[in-house]
Amino acid sequence: MSEWFGTLDGLWGEAWSQIGEGVRDAKHPARLVSFSTVSKDQRPQSRTVVLRRTDPEEAVCEVHTDIESTKIAEIEEHPLAALLWWLPHCDLQVRMLAEVSILSGDTVNSEWEKVPVSSRISYGTEPAPGLPIEAALAYTKPAVRERFCVLRCCIEQIDLTYLGQHHRRAEFTRLRDWKGQWLSP
Amino acid sequence: MSEWFGTLDGLWGEAWSQIGEGVRDAKHPARLVSFSTVSKDQRPQSRTVVLRRTDPEEAVCEVHTDIESTKIAEIEEHPLAALLWWLPHCDLQVRMLAEVSILSGDTVNSEWEKVPVSSRISYGTEPAPGLPIEAALAYTKPAVRERFCVLRCCIEQIDLTYLGQHHRRAEFTRLRDWKGQWLSP
Repeated sequence: MSEWFGTLDGLWGEAWSQIGEGVRDAKHPARLVSFSTVSKDQRPQSRTVVLRRTDPEEAVCEVHTDIESTKIAEIEEHPLAALLWWLPHCDLQVRMLAEVSILSGDTVNSEWEKVPVSSRISYGTEPAPGLPIEAALAYTKPAVRERFCVLRCCIEQIDLTYLGQHHRRAEFTRLRDWKGQWLSP
Repeated sequence: MSEWFGTLDGLWGEAWSQIGEGVRDAKHPARLVSFSTVSKDQRPQSRTVVLRRTDPEEAVCEVHTDIESTKIAEIEEHPLAALLWWLPHCDLQVRMLAEVSILSGDTVNSEWEKVPVSSRISYGTEPAPGLPIEAALAYTKPAVRERFCVLRCCIEQIDLTYLGQHHRRAEFTRLRDWKGQWLSP
């Protein structure tokens, strides 16, 4: 068995390789990720976000958001997120559990500089995202540097499921130094 | 403005129409949905599931699962789920919050009868899904009628975001009898 899904190392490598492609290629299926948090009233909350950076060595993923978005309040209360990708071209589901840090201000100057000017209006919508408005377009989108933040997701656990002909599932945890364990799929 | 995203009713109709297509057409982007729960230790948990039924009148969605899967224990403790779709062909994100009932046994006889024989092995894996195993393929997949269950998701809240040229976002809640409200996107 020399296929990537035949070994724990192979699965691990393929997962990070795929999501790395999502950062580099805007058209790649790993570009968008389901990002789930728990609200103050203990409700699950999910939304789609754009994957901005991955670091397989440190097991870190990053996304960008508006500091006034409701997920920030959720993360401040409860700094855990579940990240989920389904990658149909390689029959791979990637699930990650992360501790999330909110980085803003001068710390993220270099990231802000790299945001294309036309995309900076994603940070600063008035009224703040999720607030009721009188009509569909009764909002403005100025680019507000102070509203930009980076969610640094320090991955604690990864669950990979290959759904090809014979299903294979494995779990990797930071606690066990990313030593993989096969699971029943 | 006669586009579907121009009105609250139009957005509502398009969302239910799209996810209905996901039930009918196995190749439709709404076929798979990110299904998020909260674990006993208050962690967000997400996985991809297949959408099996929708009922726009009752605002209900259904998925099928193995009653021994870990999400069942999570739902028994905390019967809420977040459902998330990103539908790139119409620039629409659909977020739903649902109260989940676990239906099994004779109640779901008719659903079980409709599961193709070749798919019934999705219910009954030994050891149970998520348990550690010695090797990648050290499991069996018998079809076990008693392990099949339906997760009936009674939708309480729907958040729709159209991400075309001018973003539009609206929220609908059962509590307000699904009367829509525009939100800042």
